Amino acid sequence: MFTGLSAFPLTPLVDDEVDERAFVRLIERLATAGVDSITALGSTGSYAYLTPEERSRVARLAVDHAAGTPVVIGIGALRTSQVLANAANVEKAGAAGLLLAPMTYQPLTEDDVFALFRTVTAHSSLPVIVYDNPGTTHFIFSPELYGRIAELPGIASIKIPGVPAEPEAARTRVGEIRAVIPDHVTIGVSGDARAAAGLAAGCDAWYSVIGGTLPVLALGITRAAREGRFSDAIAESERLAPLWNLFSEFGGSIRVVAAIAEHLALATTSSLPLPLQGLTEAQRHRVVEVIDELGLDR
Amino acid sequence: MFTGLSAFPLTPLVDDEVDERAFVRLIERLATAGVDSITALGSTGSYAYLTPEERSRVARLAVDHAAGTPVVIGIGALRTSQVLANAANVEKAGAAGLLLAPMTYQPLTEDDVFALFRTVTAHSSLPVIVYDNPGTTHFIFSPELYGRIAELPGIASIKIPGVPAEPEAARTRVGEIRAVIPDHVTIGVSGDARAAAGLAAGCDAWYSVIGGTLPVLALGITRAAREGRFSDAIAESERLAPLWNLFSEFGGSIRVVAAIAEHLALATTSSLPLPLQGLTEAQRHRVVEVIDELGLDR
Repeated sequence: MFTGLSAFPLTPLVDDEVDERAFVRLIERLATAGVDSITALGSTGSYAYLTPEERSRVARLAVDHAAGTPVVIGIGALRTSQVLANAANVEKAGAAGLLLAPMTYQPLTEDDVFALFRTVTAHSSLPVIVYDNPGTTHFIFSPELYGRIAELPGIASIKIPGVPAEPEAARTRVGEIRAVIPDHVTIGVSGDARAAAGLAAGCDAWYSVIGGTLPVLALGITRAAREGRFSDAIAESERLAPLWNLFSEFGGSIRVVAAIAEHLALATTSSLPLPLQGLTEAQRHRVVEVIDELGLDR
Repeated sequence: MFTGLSAFPLTPLVDDEVDERAFVRLIERLATAGVDSITALGSTGSYAYLTPEERSRVARLAVDHAAGTPVVIGIGALRTSQVLANAANVEKAGAAGLLLAPMTYQPLTEDDVFALFRTVTAHSSLPVIVYDNPGTTHFIFSPELYGRIAELPGIASIKIPGVPAEPEAARTRVGEIRAVIPDHVTIGVSGDARAAAGLAAGCDAWYSVIGGTLPVLALGITRAAREGRFSDAIAESERLAPLWNLFSEFGGSIRVVAAIAEHLALATTSSLPLPLQGLTEAQRHRVVEVIDELGLDR
């Protein structure tokens, strides 16, 4: 289950409440496209901004509308007891797995993070994806810590940040991680711009932001790579460079993907939780130009 | 009110619940010492880890036990609507002011942060301290943004990170901020190790971590500086260098101050919210040595 394309949908808001219709439509879109799994309430799904009650409800909606596609749910929170409460709610909702990032306010030590994962895996029967997202958590995993955590029973996968662009460096990076974790733990790449490079370098999965809104596009890259057609995967990723450039130019993927979803009428305008403002009009215009130029309006 | 020593107490936990007896004792200790104000639920007060209900309760306890000392309460949260709800609760509790940091999960733009402060000041009648704490929020304020926000009606003070150690550089830094904000907005320094330097460089207030647990010590430095005896303030701060060194060596002030409070029986062991683990036994031993050496056990 922790291989192939895992699509990370937005959790669109409308007037500061979860837009359940829009969310259900996104889930159905992913199931119809045939993604390998759906990870709801990832960073792209704004988990950090939602109340425990909203998160429970979203988890249930995701499972109920995924038509059998395995659903993983993000359970991260600043306090361990809140993480455990989220995990229990997700288990009740019938999800297939948990995604856990070490959210920080005060900086965490390696021992803090190890104990968090040990506590969660001891309390939940669901498999866990270790979510390494330094851009939002500001926590840096060492390879040694990957190894310690991956040995815990219940750890199924590690979601790593983007790999180096250069193929040899990417293979070295993935190989270093592979060397310190058990065989049954998969490695999934994030950072959409480097996904094809990551799959070519030996990653088992793509934990994909763009796949949550444009699943057919992301499936094309994933299937090419999984069938060994790495040059096709990389060529398609390179064709999308104007999109990846917007991610970096506009300060991260979530604002751009929200603008895409809003343009495609998959969410209403201002679907992000404040204080996150959507893109400006001028930025949205650029996004639409890229969508049209690359033929992404499907 | 936004001058002199503002003491930032811990919010000790016991078995993952707020230790109300310990918290009330800390508040009474600060009031008795005669601090100029108490800021509860700052970073040191673990605001980011507590539920809205816990925060409401803590705000009320602080006001009820401060014996007339002005009480400021931290209202930061990741989502604007949660910040507004906290502000309303704090106003009901009878506090004298609000402390607001731009907490982040997804990185925020300057416009996001400006709009957050505009929304909060438009909704609350209480004066607001702008809380610039890049070590926890990872948001960097520019002087221009200080200026834009400080113009908003309701902004009373800016809590800045530690100033440069070198006196001339510190004066330049404080002068640059002073030049872009209205006269009625005070500047308060944080980063305890640089507090005496900040007060000597023209800061109006010290927003103090150590003052929340050792108020007499912090009052000594603050009063010397406020009376123009800057060399006395700086000499006392330099005497405390072994303490400040522990703050940097042990990854920030909160774990050290919690260990001090626990050693002085002001909180029970493991008073921080998990996943934040307290200091190790060896680290605590070092803390106790410094407490004894500096005569801080009062």
